Amino acid sequence: MSVAVTSADGTHIPLLEAELLRWVGSGDSLLELACLDALFPPGKLLRPILCMESAKAVGGTADQVLAFAAGIECLHVASLIHDDIVDQDPVRRGRASTAQQYGIAEALVAGDGLSMAGIAALLSGGPAERVLHAARVTVEALRHMCQGIMRETEIRGDLTCGVPTVLNVMQAKTSALTGAACQAGAILAGATPEQDRALRTYGEHLGMAFQIRDDLLPYTAEDQITGKTAISDVANLQPTLPVLLAYEVADKADRDRLTTVFHGDPDPVTAHRDILAVLTRTGALTKAAQMASSRAEQAHVALTGLPDALRLAELATSAADRQR
Amino acid sequence: MSVAVTSADGTHIPLLEAELLRWVGSGDSLLELACLDALFPPGKLLRPILCMESAKAVGGTADQVLAFAAGIECLHVASLIHDDIVDQDPVRRGRASTAQQYGIAEALVAGDGLSMAGIAALLSGGPAERVLHAARVTVEALRHMCQGIMRETEIRGDLTCGVPTVLNVMQAKTSALTGAACQAGAILAGATPEQDRALRTYGEHLGMAFQIRDDLLPYTAEDQITGKTAISDVANLQPTLPVLLAYEVADKADRDRLTTVFHGDPDPVTAHRDILAVLTRTGALTKAAQMASSRAEQAHVALTGLPDALRLAELATSAADRQR
Repeated sequence: MSVAVTSADGTHIPLLEAELLRWVGSGDSLLELACLDALFPPGKLLRPILCMESAKAVGGTADQVLAFAAGIECLHVASLIHDDIVDQDPVRRGRASTAQQYGIAEALVAGDGLSMAGIAALLSGGPAERVLHAARVTVEALRHMCQGIMRETEIRGDLTCGVPTVLNVMQAKTSALTGAACQAGAILAGATPEQDRALRTYGEHLGMAFQIRDDLLPYTAEDQITGKTAISDVANLQPTLPVLLAYEVADKADRDRLTTVFHGDPDPVTAHRDILAVLTRTGALTKAAQMASSRAEQAHVALTGLPDALRLAELATSAADRQR
Repeated sequence: MSVAVTSADGTHIPLLEAELLRWVGSGDSLLELACLDALFPPGKLLRPILCMESAKAVGGTADQVLAFAAGIECLHVASLIHDDIVDQDPVRRGRASTAQQYGIAEALVAGDGLSMAGIAALLSGGPAERVLHAARVTVEALRHMCQGIMRETEIRGDLTCGVPTVLNVMQAKTSALTGAACQAGAILAGATPEQDRALRTYGEHLGMAFQIRDDLLPYTAEDQITGKTAISDVANLQPTLPVLLAYEVADKADRDRLTTVFHGDPDPVTAHRDILAVLTRTGALTKAAQMASSRAEQAHVALTGLPDALRLAELATSAADRQR
C-alpha cells in the first residue's frame, strides 16, 4: 500500500481524481490523452494530500484547497514526464514512460500542457489575496525544482560532487514542493503566518525524508514494489545519497569499485550487486536510513502547537518508513 | 529594423530588458545561463509591447504592467526553446538554438525554468484581483498554445490536413497569446470589460496577421533578414498556410510536386525552389498576403472607440507588412 492511500482519509482520493480529470480534460486530443495517461492510475498523491491535510490542520477543509491540490499534482506529474525525457528513462510507475509511449517531442509538449493545466488550477479559486500568495509560494518551489533538475544533469557520473551537493539537489527537486504544498494549503485555509511557516518547515523535512528513502529503495525493495527498475539510477549514472555516503568513507578498493560502475560497467545487474555490497560494507544504507528518520523527527517537531495535526504526523512517519 | 523597435516608444525596450534580467537572474547557474542566452539579444518583444501599449490605450501606464509584460516574454521564449526541440531546429534568431548549444535535456529544463520565471513575474504585481484575472487569461492562452503545438506534430507531412486546420493551429500557437497579452495589459490597467474584450480581439487578429506573414517569410525575404533558414519549415515537413492554400487549388502536376517534397526530397534547396514556383503559380502567396492584410484590418476595427490606440494601430499595420 502506498503512503498516501494507507494514511489519508479515504474520501480524499476519489475527490482528487475527479478534480484532476476536470483540469486535464476527457482525452479528446492527443495532448489530453498523453496527460491522462501520465496522471492515471495515480501515484501516491503525496503532495495534494499534504496540501489538503495542511488546510485541515489549521482549521480549514480539504474542499477549500481541492483545485489547488489537484494543480500541484498536475505540476508534479508534468515534472516527472520531463524528468523521464532528461533521464531517458523508459519506465515510470511500472509502465512505459510518456516519452517511451508517445515519443520525446509529444511527451515534452504533454508535460508543458499538464504544467499549464496545473497553473490554471492553482489560480482558479479565491479569495484573490490568498490564492495569489499560495500560488507565488508554489511557483517559487517549482523554480527551485528546475534548478535542482539542471544541477542534477551537471553532476551525472560525478562521484566526487559530495553529499551536500546531493542534499541540495534533493531540497530543490523534492522538498521545496512538498514544503510549498503544505504552506499553500495553510495559506488558503487562512492560517496565521506562524502556522504557514511551521507547515512549510514540516513539509520540507517530510520531503527530505521521503526522497532519502526513495534513493534507498533500489537497495531495500523489490522492483515490482517500487514500480521502477532498481538499476535505473545506476543506469543514469546518477550519484545518489547512499552512493555518495559510501564513497565518502570507502577504502581505495571500494572507491575503485564505485568508480568502475560510474564509468559505465557494461552489465547493470553486476553493477547493482557491486554497489549494494559497498553500500552495506560502508554502513551507507544505515546512515541514509538514519538521516531519513531524523528528518521525519524534525517534521514532527514542526507540528508542535498546530490544532489538528495528527494525520500529518502519521504521514511524516510513513514517509521515513516507506517500502515503495 | 524589427516591428517592435521601429514602432514602440523607445524607452520601453531598455526597461523591458532590465525587467527580464530581474526575473531570470544573472547567470550564476547553468539554468540561468541558458535562459539568458535564449532571451538576449531579444527578439521583437512583440507580446510584451502589446501588453504595455494595451495598458496605455485604456489610460494606464506601461510601468503598471512591466513585470507582467516581461513574464509574457519569458513564457514566449520558453515556448520557442521547447519548439526547437520538438522541431529539431538547430537555428533560432540567426544563432544556434538552445538545444543545439546546451543539449536537448538542458534545453528542456531551461525552458521549464524560464516558463516558471515567467509565471512568477505574472503573479508578482497587484492589486490581487486584477493580477489573478490577467494571469488566468494568459495561462488559458498558454494551454491553447500547447494544444496547437501538439496538433502541429500530428499534421507533420500531411498536405491534406486542410487550410482550416492550419488556421486553427495558428490561432492556438500564436494568436491566443497575443490576444491574451493585450487583454491582460488592459485588465491590469483597470479597463472596462468592453475595453479588455476589444483589445483581446485586436490582439488575436494582429497575431494571425503576424503569423500568416511569418509563414510567408521563407518565400519573400532573405535568410539573413529572417534569422532562420528559409528551408526550415520544409525540412520539418510542416505544412504551412501558403503551401496548403496552393495545394487546395493546384493541378495534379503541382500537387505531385508538393507531395514529392513532403515525402522527403533529398535536396532542401531544390525543394524550396520547387515549392516557391508552385506557390507563385497558384497565387497562394498573394492569397496569404491578402489574408494577413484582412486580419490587420480587423485588428484596426477592434480599436474603434479606445481612448489612445494610435500606437496599437501602427503595430497592426507593421505586423501585416513585416519583412522579418
